[in-house]
Amino acid sequence: MHPLDAADPLAANRDRFVGSEQPLVYLDGNSLGRPLRGTGDRLRDFVEQTWGGRLIRGWDEGWFDLPRTLGDELGRVVLGAGPGQTVVGDSTTVLLYKAMRAAVAAQLARDSRRTELVLSRDDFPTDRYLAAGVAREHGLTLRWIEVDPAAGVDADQLADAVGPRTALVALSHVAYRSAYLADAPTLTRIAHDAGALVLWDLSHSVGSVPLELDAWDVDLAVGCTYKYLNGGPGSPAFLYAAQRHLEGPDRLVQPVQGWMGAADPFLMGPDYAPADGVQGFLSGTPPVLGMLAMQDMLALLDEVGMPAVRAKSVGLTEHAIAVAADLLPELALASPADPGRRGGHVTLSHPRMREVVAALWQRDVIPDYRDPGGLRLGLSPLSTSYDEVGRGLQAVREVLDGLDR
Amino acid sequence: MHPLDAADPLAANRDRFVGSEQPLVYLDGNSLGRPLRGTGDRLRDFVEQTWGGRLIRGWDEGWFDLPRTLGDELGRVVLGAGPGQTVVGDSTTVLLYKAMRAAVAAQLARDSRRTELVLSRDDFPTDRYLAAGVAREHGLTLRWIEVDPAAGVDADQLADAVGPRTALVALSHVAYRSAYLADAPTLTRIAHDAGALVLWDLSHSVGSVPLELDAWDVDLAVGCTYKYLNGGPGSPAFLYAAQRHLEGPDRLVQPVQGWMGAADPFLMGPDYAPADGVQGFLSGTPPVLGMLAMQDMLALLDEVGMPAVRAKSVGLTEHAIAVAADLLPELALASPADPGRRGGHVTLSHPRMREVVAALWQRDVIPDYRDPGGLRLGLSPLSTSYDEVGRGLQAVREVLDGLDR
Repeated sequence: MHPLDAADPLAANRDRFVGSEQPLVYLDGNSLGRPLRGTGDRLRDFVEQTWGGRLIRGWDEGWFDLPRTLGDELGRVVLGAGPGQTVVGDSTTVLLYKAMRAAVAAQLARDSRRTELVLSRDDFPTDRYLAAGVAREHGLTLRWIEVDPAAGVDADQLADAVGPRTALVALSHVAYRSAYLADAPTLTRIAHDAGALVLWDLSHSVGSVPLELDAWDVDLAVGCTYKYLNGGPGSPAFLYAAQRHLEGPDRLVQPVQGWMGAADPFLMGPDYAPADGVQGFLSGTPPVLGMLAMQDMLALLDEVGMPAVRAKSVGLTEHAIAVAADLLPELALASPADPGRRGGHVTLSHPRMREVVAALWQRDVIPDYRDPGGLRLGLSPLSTSYDEVGRGLQAVREVLDGLDR
Repeated sequence: MHPLDAADPLAANRDRFVGSEQPLVYLDGNSLGRPLRGTGDRLRDFVEQTWGGRLIRGWDEGWFDLPRTLGDELGRVVLGAGPGQTVVGDSTTVLLYKAMRAAVAAQLARDSRRTELVLSRDDFPTDRYLAAGVAREHGLTLRWIEVDPAAGVDADQLADAVGPRTALVALSHVAYRSAYLADAPTLTRIAHDAGALVLWDLSHSVGSVPLELDAWDVDLAVGCTYKYLNGGPGSPAFLYAAQRHLEGPDRLVQPVQGWMGAADPFLMGPDYAPADGVQGFLSGTPPVLGMLAMQDMLALLDEVGMPAVRAKSVGLTEHAIAVAADLLPELALASPADPGRRGGHVTLSHPRMREVVAALWQRDVIPDYRDPGGLRLGLSPLSTSYDEVGRGLQAVREVLDGLDR
């Protein structure tokens, strides 16, 4: 056993994940987390006992409330959010759309001069594409913050970008390529000082970086559950909206007016009235099957605690950077060197990295590739060992040596 | 065995569903279909072998294409739609929103006078609520067709409602309360003659009523997969858009611009360009887990064939109406008496039906209740027996007799 694994108090958790006994080196848990060993049985039992046994009665026995009860659990375990502010449902993209539309509408209603959306040029594509669409719908202007490839938006950059014309700032908490960890509380305050609202995309941070959404005074946040929350391919996303935006005449209202976001879904009356609270961000029937697997990971994260998860995460990324510095000096670090500004993955770049990653996959070493030339190592804290990181980087060495021959 | 079950060539299929051996009388398969016996193992095996074993590689090995490959299979087996026009993803509500927005934008671009949405007062709440939101966004007018409670929109009513101001007609193929089966090809032609587009909500027809979307010249259709397609609670919906609306400068474009609807999701470039074809109606990461169960039902429907399914469906609803006429003369038929104008469920009304249904649930007889006073019997063709219908109606008799005492 690798001495770092021997000293790791969380090492034994890796055995709880499906496939961890196999020689595969999996360095892409930030794209799709591994299932826990109990998850397959949970899904089968759900089909045979709950869906098959309770049938339509299941809706009254927990399924209708699941978007909010699971949202509250996410809030407690990983978001630093009090109850009643989080729902699960729809894809990350759809929830980001609803959040952007709701925020922009509220800001324009308050002050018609607030016509700018502020984004980072390195935001995830969905966020940028959505914002462009919302801007076109509302006649808004996109204001882009240009970022260093190995970094993200800092306080000075945001302070320069926001002002009396800013409606909404939409940023990634952890950048999908560089892993830059934004200073969310400071950036949120800067945006608020300019009268803007803030929407955080937590997809690459939730479950690996501790979050304190309430304490940071965040307005809106959306995140993905199939990465560090191990919800399975395409599992539904979550949306957080601060309580102050969920009540009163200025409450945020989203545009996809469906029955599940209505005040009384089964009244089926002539007119739509949004439900109280965060339920109003829902639209269609909750995707119950997709909400099951993440419950297993959430229980494990609750047991381990996010501070310990983060400590392991930092340990893994520090180790990857240190080994790469020795073993792969020709690679450039495309992530922050400061662990305090780095999320749960590490990106190392090389001009021939696309072919390197293709060769690694052939050898059952599975990292991700991201343009330009990025080897993205997603080090899911509870399912990745130090040994695995070392074996992965050794394989990179061998593939690079093979290319040079 | 009931003689009608003994004579039913499809009777043995009922044993293929989880829970069919139990005494429960399940008359709500049109709200949530039963799982097939293989579905639980399929989900467990998916978690342990495919998700857990293939991990991120699964996306290249079928998951990315699943919205379209499963869409094509839906097209072939139940929609009467050629390939390349159907995708699975998002909730019914979200897909209806995208379809309405896309249709309205295209019509307004063509002719700014087309500012009316035509709907039935008896459309499902989500459809009506969405339309109200879309109308507010675009400054459109809603034009309501008033319908007889036991019926739906007929040709004369639609012809009176549409004209040079109509942008879109949005109707249910089978009405969620009355089960009125609209004459989709005729109504589509009437709308087209007025220059309008048509969006069919197939939620209550798909899987129980044969569909010929291509032959009927339908523009857009959306439907639910957890009713007669047995996809499980909250399984993702499907959207059909005719090929003629998916190409050229007038192609339909939806507003939720996410990476999965982009021309090259992994280019991750600066600007959104919609993907070719129906892929452009997607937005976020496909909900793979939610797309598994419906594949089992689709295989069964393919084996049995939709004409046989429809014949059984008509047999079940005719039987329910005949038994109720004898046994429950105080109930009023709130569904069409003509089986050719009736979908897969039957609604019978009585002033005290809400309390009757509550009492039936206590006796493990599970129909649905819908205002005003409706006992809705959803007779899922392959998982419901004639005997079950009879036992359910006998229980209604007993509960009603108990109330009168």
